[in-house]
Amino acid sequence: MGKKAGIGIGILGLGVIGNAVARALLARAGALEAVAGCPLQLRKIAEKDRDKVRASKMDPALFTADPAEVVADPDVDIIIEVLGGEHPAKEFIDKALGSGKYVVTSNKEVISKHLPEFAALAKKKGVDILYEASVGGGIPLIAPFKQDLSANAISAIYAIINGTTNYILTRMASEEIDFSTALKQAQKLGYAEPDPTNDIEGIDAAYKLAILATLAFHAEVHPDDVYHEGISRLSSRDFRYAKELGYEIKLLAIAKEQDGSIEVRVHPVFLPDDLLLAKVEGVYNAIQVEGDLVGRVLFYGQGAGPSATSSAVLADVIDVAQRICRGAKLTHTLRLDPSKRIKPIAEIETRYYLRMITVDRPGVLAKISKVMADNDISISSVIQRESDVAHDVAEIVLMTYPAKEQAMQQAMGKISRLDVMQEIANFVRVED
Amino acid sequence: MGKKAGIGIGILGLGVIGNAVARALLARAGALEAVAGCPLQLRKIAEKDRDKVRASKMDPALFTADPAEVVADPDVDIIIEVLGGEHPAKEFIDKALGSGKYVVTSNKEVISKHLPEFAALAKKKGVDILYEASVGGGIPLIAPFKQDLSANAISAIYAIINGTTNYILTRMASEEIDFSTALKQAQKLGYAEPDPTNDIEGIDAAYKLAILATLAFHAEVHPDDVYHEGISRLSSRDFRYAKELGYEIKLLAIAKEQDGSIEVRVHPVFLPDDLLLAKVEGVYNAIQVEGDLVGRVLFYGQGAGPSATSSAVLADVIDVAQRICRGAKLTHTLRLDPSKRIKPIAEIETRYYLRMITVDRPGVLAKISKVMADNDISISSVIQRESDVAHDVAEIVLMTYPAKEQAMQQAMGKISRLDVMQEIANFVRVED
Repeated sequence: MGKKAGIGIGILGLGVIGNAVARALLARAGALEAVAGCPLQLRKIAEKDRDKVRASKMDPALFTADPAEVVADPDVDIIIEVLGGEHPAKEFIDKALGSGKYVVTSNKEVISKHLPEFAALAKKKGVDILYEASVGGGIPLIAPFKQDLSANAISAIYAIINGTTNYILTRMASEEIDFSTALKQAQKLGYAEPDPTNDIEGIDAAYKLAILATLAFHAEVHPDDVYHEGISRLSSRDFRYAKELGYEIKLLAIAKEQDGSIEVRVHPVFLPDDLLLAKVEGVYNAIQVEGDLVGRVLFYGQGAGPSATSSAVLADVIDVAQRICRGAKLTHTLRLDPSKRIKPIAEIETRYYLRMITVDRPGVLAKISKVMADNDISISSVIQRESDVAHDVAEIVLMTYPAKEQAMQQAMGKISRLDVMQEIANFVRVED
Repeated sequence: MGKKAGIGIGILGLGVIGNAVARALLARAGALEAVAGCPLQLRKIAEKDRDKVRASKMDPALFTADPAEVVADPDVDIIIEVLGGEHPAKEFIDKALGSGKYVVTSNKEVISKHLPEFAALAKKKGVDILYEASVGGGIPLIAPFKQDLSANAISAIYAIINGTTNYILTRMASEEIDFSTALKQAQKLGYAEPDPTNDIEGIDAAYKLAILATLAFHAEVHPDDVYHEGISRLSSRDFRYAKELGYEIKLLAIAKEQDGSIEVRVHPVFLPDDLLLAKVEGVYNAIQVEGDLVGRVLFYGQGAGPSATSSAVLADVIDVAQRICRGAKLTHTLRLDPSKRIKPIAEIETRYYLRMITVDRPGVLAKISKVMADNDISISSVIQRESDVAHDVAEIVLMTYPAKEQAMQQAMGKISRLDVMQEIANFVRVED
């Protein structure tokens, strides 16, 4: 078969994902051709690190140290960008689309920050950029929003889209260990990076949520629009109370639309323990979507890992290859409605869990309750155990009815200044 | 806008699904046009029942009593077939595809029995037949196999794809009621039909599994190839033992491929209660798929109902409309590998739960154990409670290690003829 008979593929980056994708392209060439409709030919891989190239044991003629060379290669029709990070991925994607090549990427950061530009450039050049692998590994998540659920008005997304934090929270819940111990275990097992900031602070989840919300609500949602809080404040005491009250604690990515107003936030959540989403354990991901026709659907699977991610990258490659082989035009265009607005976190309304350490004295609860009432917040339940007499402190846990975040923040400000208050040990939002 | 400016749509049948689809097409015309790329125009609905037509309050000019008239209408580009059942749906689909029209259907029976013919005819005529709504209501299930998971070799599907039976089993498990009481409740709530045979005997699930297996394994799987057993034999005692042993009882549709051999079966299953699939309750559906790249993914949602089903029908209509509007060609073709074989149920290997009523006498368990051992079946656990002395009977429950179905059937035959045996009260397969 001549070199131009098939679809030429170039890969930018031979990290774990690039490696898995390259291997799968070579190992299952026959099966991929059957589904794509024409041969998929891996023609070039850009990788600077000579050790990685050697370790891969792939044909050295496939490699170049310079990504620009792959992007410029006239025999390459599809660029698979698996470099990760914003730069220089952004520049290579621009160049690839600008020269009329299709792009497939697993890069959540660059997509969440630049999707509308990329989509506009792709449309102008009659090509496309696909990014199924950028959220939820191999779980089909982008395709449902583009196609399967596209007749629906989507009202809400509740997602566990960071495996590292879900692993840590699962360990904290099941073994009653504290955050730092669980994090160390996750690092030991390779589930958390040496610098875990992006995962544990909810930044990774914010990237992914921005992508999902953009597609679901047809509005440009930038990662900076996403409010995010991490999981490091959670203690084993919070897990004990959650269990007692019938909840699991999860780091949720939440996006909702109501009357043209969008809320997007990532933070720990008390989730009723009978919900399917609450039962998602370990490094698994799950995304629950609510549409006006379909009702509640949930997608579950491995949210990361080279093999699962390569499943999504290859699905996108197949999609593009089918279009090229059969002369089809672009079928999906990114629709964005500029009239939609992002709601600040102060405006959201939800329920709250509040754990406080106070001095052990009569009338403490009355003082706290008064502040809550003054801010229009109703208390749904209270737990107050026997006090720690030796230290003259008591622990009080409150659950509220739905209240505005702003009111809650004001109330907490005042409560923390009460003379009876030692500290507000934690506060966690509650989703029912 | 002139009549020919958009895509013409005809609907065969104004049942609950046809009604929901027609209403959605009319009510969300603007949103559908935005995603499809051109207007979708409902031009004709075939419905014989004048009462249904009147009750719909839709424009009477839309209606005809004769489906053939809709199929023959030159202004109709897409036929939505929601008649249900094999005939005359089969004939109308043939006619529609034969005259170069696209077909979208929610009809599991006709698709499970005739998909390969339909696909061949559609290909010949340069059109397509889409059937996302035929399995799992609005849950995207067909699209993942065609596209999102298409780089994977699929090894297994475990599915709860019948809401009626899952509702009944959920009630039996939570309320310790017997089958007939739970069925009556389901009928009262409209979750089971007056004649529930198709649902409770696993026939409906067998149709759906045949479709999923055909797509997943690229092999023609006919509903007659699917072994099926219903749920009516289950008693509240089985649920009590299941709970005690750490299992839930579900009606599972199972499809596996190994070495070119396919097993497809629908029957009650003991499922470990910590699996996500075991936690799917009520009328909800869930489909777990295992692929060699993606690992284990699960899709969950409402498997039926007019609204959810219309979500899937409209997704297919949008897909077709995008292709027509943008002049794209067919991208998916049904691939079938004739070398694959269907494994008879006798050849499957699994674990078993066996509940027996015996006379209350020493040595009974020894006799049963000997028969099992003679047939190469190892017992993993035994429960024998205090006997019912008044009636001189005992109840013995066995769980086995993996064994061949054939061996198990032979063993049960022999056990049932032991002089100490009153009856084999139930046997249920176990999946781990």
